[in-house]
Amino acid sequence: MKFKHLRADRMADMSVNAIREILKVVSQPGVVSLAGGIPSPDSFPLDIIKQLCQEVIQKYGPAAFQYDTTEGFEPLRQALADHLNTNKAFDLHPEQVFISSGSQGALDAVGKVLISKGDLIGVEAPTYLGALQAFDPYEPVYINLETDAHGLVPESLEKTLQKLALKFIYLVPNFQNPTGRTLSRSRREEVAHILTRHDALLIEDDPYGDLRYDGDFIVSVKSLAPDHVVYIGTLSKIFSPGLRVGFYVPPFDLQDWLVIVKQGVDLHTSTFNQALAAEYLLGGHLKKILPSILALYKPKKDAMLAALDEYFPDKFTWTRPEGGMFLWVEGPTGYDGDALYNRAIQNNVAYVPGKYFFADGQSGQETMRLNFTMADEATIERAIKTLAGIL
Amino acid sequence: MKFKHLRADRMADMSVNAIREILKVVSQPGVVSLAGGIPSPDSFPLDIIKQLCQEVIQKYGPAAFQYDTTEGFEPLRQALADHLNTNKAFDLHPEQVFISSGSQGALDAVGKVLISKGDLIGVEAPTYLGALQAFDPYEPVYINLETDAHGLVPESLEKTLQKLALKFIYLVPNFQNPTGRTLSRSRREEVAHILTRHDALLIEDDPYGDLRYDGDFIVSVKSLAPDHVVYIGTLSKIFSPGLRVGFYVPPFDLQDWLVIVKQGVDLHTSTFNQALAAEYLLGGHLKKILPSILALYKPKKDAMLAALDEYFPDKFTWTRPEGGMFLWVEGPTGYDGDALYNRAIQNNVAYVPGKYFFADGQSGQETMRLNFTMADEATIERAIKTLAGIL
Repeated sequence: MKFKHLRADRMADMSVNAIREILKVVSQPGVVSLAGGIPSPDSFPLDIIKQLCQEVIQKYGPAAFQYDTTEGFEPLRQALADHLNTNKAFDLHPEQVFISSGSQGALDAVGKVLISKGDLIGVEAPTYLGALQAFDPYEPVYINLETDAHGLVPESLEKTLQKLALKFIYLVPNFQNPTGRTLSRSRREEVAHILTRHDALLIEDDPYGDLRYDGDFIVSVKSLAPDHVVYIGTLSKIFSPGLRVGFYVPPFDLQDWLVIVKQGVDLHTSTFNQALAAEYLLGGHLKKILPSILALYKPKKDAMLAALDEYFPDKFTWTRPEGGMFLWVEGPTGYDGDALYNRAIQNNVAYVPGKYFFADGQSGQETMRLNFTMADEATIERAIKTLAGIL
Repeated sequence: MKFKHLRADRMADMSVNAIREILKVVSQPGVVSLAGGIPSPDSFPLDIIKQLCQEVIQKYGPAAFQYDTTEGFEPLRQALADHLNTNKAFDLHPEQVFISSGSQGALDAVGKVLISKGDLIGVEAPTYLGALQAFDPYEPVYINLETDAHGLVPESLEKTLQKLALKFIYLVPNFQNPTGRTLSRSRREEVAHILTRHDALLIEDDPYGDLRYDGDFIVSVKSLAPDHVVYIGTLSKIFSPGLRVGFYVPPFDLQDWLVIVKQGVDLHTSTFNQALAAEYLLGGHLKKILPSILALYKPKKDAMLAALDEYFPDKFTWTRPEGGMFLWVEGPTGYDGDALYNRAIQNNVAYVPGKYFFADGQSGQETMRLNFTMADEATIERAIKTLAGIL
């Protein structure tokens, strides 16, 4: 049977995630991968999870394995509200927190509820590829917003909103993927004002906010303009990505719509995994584990920065993130990133060419995203030295 | 902030699941619910799950908690292929089996890949509401196919395909939700021939196939026309619905597209839950547990049929399913189902009015869906007696 004629119109421009294809290639033995975007397996608290499994079965019984509401498992919504209020300067009731199947699930729901074909979405350039993958099936048009070392340039957002009706703006304000950049406090206030003035909606994606190794906590844009922001978070980086537990805090009037579309997609997120996450938070385990995760990643980040400082040529620049999992290298304009990538792979070092993170599909030829969470410090230094040798 | 103007066009006709709203009302204390569509909590093998948690952590270590491929956890794909080949007369390689977040996830992916606005989808009348909820956001038009006591009438499919280009046909051939009806073996062969002759695509949804209490196994339509059927299954009824592990077996040419859209929706299904499901199958636990699930449900079904035979008036008819979770009652034409439902609720007995299962939103006023998996036999008898008293 032939199927091409059966495909929906929306599939015409869709293709496999290029990064995913890269990751398949570089998972071969002997390749040092700075390409991944995944937490270190050393960060998973296996002993605690083992214990939590028993506790959840004991405490919740069959309810942990039954169908549950689309909104989310009540004890987890309660635990997350407490966590966000205590540690992130939120002021939430549990019924304002909704559970999604990873933060990806929240991005899909946002796209489904809001994007009609041709709608304009404001994005950073570069931006997180997974968000584009969630939005693409709903056929938006991306509008690049200007960014610099401190993240989104607020004037660029202001000017764009004066000219164009954006359906929403998508930002990763903390330790952005791919650049590692963080939107400064003063810019967050400016962005909040702009959103309110233009009655515009922001999707604030915060997967890395907990992974801060240096500097001080910065309040979310959501806290500054609660009615104009869908805040999205996840437990993937501070508990386990394989459990697929994310969450979102939408403005009141969007709550029902987001729940309706999630219901059609997966009915609800795994009850058992939500119960594990609830007990992880309620039992005080995150508070004990997070410092060890930070202690695992900070030396890796510092090792990568030290190696870049020592080995990389002057005409290259890179970000100095205070947290997260990535840093971003820019070469001189006109630099042939593809040639570099191919030579790097030949020398058994992999990373993700930065061009894949631009919604326009053409910028970023001279850029690269380097991940520092997977390899150990010595390997990171060796890999950076190898890359520098090629440059 | 106002959001109504921001909503995507596709949201205009979407509303909350009516059944879900009914279930909220009837979960009040004192109400005997024949309304639910969920497995009995007594069917969940808690002791085995407790043991499997330890085994999975021991066997797979951090890999059970890491990101995994969108296609699915390899050991589970292998275990499911073995299960389907051994018990369901399939002939599959593991790489033909893909994992979804519940069968709902597979339905959403099918809708996203195939349905453009206005596309025609052939459905049974009545049909499974959750499938409509998965497809609705992609804005299809439903074409009702004729059914009788043996399920879909093949001539109705033949005639429809002669007149109309259906994007696909959606069927639940085993113990259908809501009617409990099963498509006979000879009709499956006819349907397979019709699909092949018209080069048409069938979505064969089989959540209840394992729950057979009487009669003999009937081969899937997928086995009879492999290249023209997406077969969808789930572990929700024979392991745990709260783990959200489903699976699908698509024709080869649809595999990549279904994986691409799933990637945008949730990246992948929970690795840990897939590992639990894999060990449940590999350890031979399903083989031991399934007979006890059947032994739990069969007396409930028989009790409901006996009570209907004893108490219900002659002008009502009902199905006599050989498996599944539901049976279907039809009153005389013109019967006022809403009045009956309201009086039933006043008498503390709940069920789902059958009208909700018709895609046209107007048929089935005189019908009701009765679930027999949740209450015990004595309660079922009392509830049916109460309903009969109202009729």
